Amino acid sequence: MYFYDLNEIQYRPKREGVRIKGISGECVQMTVVELAPGFASDHMHPQEQMGYILSGELDVTIGGETKRCGAGCAYFIPANLRHGFRVISDQPAEIMDIFSPPKDENRENQR
Amino acid sequence: MYFYDLNEIQYRPKREGVRIKGISGECVQMTVVELAPGFASDHMHPQEQMGYILSGELDVTIGGETKRCGAGCAYFIPANLRHGFRVISDQPAEIMDIFSPPKDENRENQR
Repeated sequence: MYFYDLNEIQYRPKREGVRIKGISGECVQMTVVELAPGFASDHMHPQEQMGYILSGELDVTIGGETKRCGAGCAYFIPANLRHGFRVISDQPAEIMDIFSPPKDENRENQR
Repeated sequence: MYFYDLNEIQYRPKREGVRIKGISGECVQMTVVELAPGFASDHMHPQEQMGYILSGELDVTIGGETKRCGAGCAYFIPANLRHGFRVISDQPAEIMDIFSPPKDENRENQR
């Protein structure tokens, strides 16, 4: 299947405060992630990651550098660099998060 | 640099009817592409591609299958599969287009 309506695909819970939906290919994975108000994370992984804020406001920390991000803000996270998200807005934050190679835990609609 | 404001980064012309901006990493490239009304393409490339329609309406053809796509529609284009875009709306179409590995011709804000 080549086409997906991301408005129609339902989020699935990933862990507390995180819901996710998306598409996985061989090389790249495109996800839409919803982070609940107050959600905070801090981790690292071997996948390269890029993201684009669709809605909401959050502090994004990458390699010790923190920036307050709203709609239109994008970020690049090199492989194996520690990073985290903290939702500031009263509404959930929606992010388009891209991983290469795909993360196994995010796989759904696998091509 | 880890952070980019895609509202502030200016589009650059890529070819007639196409303007582009984005970020390139080692494994993945995230671009925002603006296609002019009436623009039509038909090509293939060795990069895997995924996309997400931000605004406008267009017919997307992948491997001979065509779908009319608006905001929220996403697509997956396997490597080396012929595909094309045809803008239907009177306004430009804006797409988030993701390539892995990065396409040389789209490189800017190279990490």
